[in-house]
Amino acid sequence: MTEANISKRQFKLLNALQLKKFRKQHQSFVVEGEKSVVETLKSAYQVEELFCTLDFADKHATLLSKASNTWVVPETDLKKASYFQTNNSSLAIVGIPASSSPPKLPPNTYGLVLDGIQDPGNLGTIIRIADWYGMPQILCSTDTVDLYNPKVIAACMGSFLRVEVFYVDLSTHFQAVDQAPLYGAFLDGHNLHEWSFPQQSGYIVLGNESKGIRDYLQPIIHEKITIPRFGEAESLNVAMATAVICDHVKRSGAK
Amino acid sequence: MTEANISKRQFKLLNALQLKKFRKQHQSFVVEGEKSVVETLKSAYQVEELFCTLDFADKHATLLSKASNTWVVPETDLKKASYFQTNNSSLAIVGIPASSSPPKLPPNTYGLVLDGIQDPGNLGTIIRIADWYGMPQILCSTDTVDLYNPKVIAACMGSFLRVEVFYVDLSTHFQAVDQAPLYGAFLDGHNLHEWSFPQQSGYIVLGNESKGIRDYLQPIIHEKITIPRFGEAESLNVAMATAVICDHVKRSGAK
Repeated sequence: MTEANISKRQFKLLNALQLKKFRKQHQSFVVEGEKSVVETLKSAYQVEELFCTLDFADKHATLLSKASNTWVVPETDLKKASYFQTNNSSLAIVGIPASSSPPKLPPNTYGLVLDGIQDPGNLGTIIRIADWYGMPQILCSTDTVDLYNPKVIAACMGSFLRVEVFYVDLSTHFQAVDQAPLYGAFLDGHNLHEWSFPQQSGYIVLGNESKGIRDYLQPIIHEKITIPRFGEAESLNVAMATAVICDHVKRSGAK
Repeated sequence: MTEANISKRQFKLLNALQLKKFRKQHQSFVVEGEKSVVETLKSAYQVEELFCTLDFADKHATLLSKASNTWVVPETDLKKASYFQTNNSSLAIVGIPASSSPPKLPPNTYGLVLDGIQDPGNLGTIIRIADWYGMPQILCSTDTVDLYNPKVIAACMGSFLRVEVFYVDLSTHFQAVDQAPLYGAFLDGHNLHEWSFPQQSGYIVLGNESKGIRDYLQPIIHEKITIPRFGEAESLNVAMATAVICDHVKRSGAK
């Protein structure tokens, strides 16, 4: 394979895909960095354009046919095209899968519900936590930060390939479609350490970074749960709270 | 109080304090944002220069005397001087306290040890977790990111005022000075869910984001601890791991 420069048109597209508007228009998003790109090539996702160094092409030769188009490019071009300056091996334009409705949870399995999470690093980290704890899906309010934001994709380290993320009207969904119980993280609920999640299916609900879970969801929250505090910090970051609660779900024996 | 512009000299100093070299030279660092600045004014830390808007000065009039110098400045100047563009109320130059040696832990209390944490967001979040769980001190290897880095100060949301952070040669310290047992977070240790921390004093050791706990510490690690994984993610972020383990320490009944 011969090396060529990234064209002006390609640079423009890669740059545009940093914005949700253009991701929607092109129905595609960008994955950066060797580990995530390799995992994406191995997955069911469709890699439309793969840009990589000669080194990457040599090392992962058998995977290149999974991409519709492969471009071997200089490392300097790759760095210029990357959102993250540390990326020096590969970058993929990947098709956004057709949207679908969230399936019901398998028996005795917990999922996550996110109400208005704004920080892309938090969403990425939460997806990674769900993946660690084997939670199959996350339902987000429609105003939660976009899954395909480059910072979300970077922070979740490939976990978006294994955890399904849906954007739905949470209120309608949990009243009309799915009656699975919701357990919300609040500052005034049951002490988590003295609480056992029932061995059935349900969702853990986490709220916005500054406002928490909004009022419109409160009528359909089954139980309020609180991580006990032993010191002085006003709050735990939402991703920390997710990790501690997910860990507790597993202590309760649920899948 | 009358409003005046931030001088060129002050801008230069505020800018320089983003770098460790100049923080060391001036023995001071910057705290940004209303909540953190107010907490700092109320603490034992010495606020050398306070820059704030007229609104802030009105709202917190009784606190202003805690600063050696107060400058009421336009919001536009404040934004220009801030590391974080969201800061629109106040900014303080604060003296770095004289360094001291870490005291022994109180009876039946756990602390944290950080070996080479590089990401300032991670260090800030870990300090906030320690504060939530009432852990009084964190011992860092000398190559851990600087506590007074603006991103660390922002991420810990004032918790640096309550949790003491020390930089020491960990190997020497835990061999020659303090023999408190060390419990390290590894991928091949005791299952955390089946492990109980003894009701005595000790430290939880967390390692570098990509390399984990380095070999030089392994001989002095008392036990290896592992957060059980139920899914596919390769690892948990170090701050998540800290939250889950600290939560577990409290379940074990230690302070």
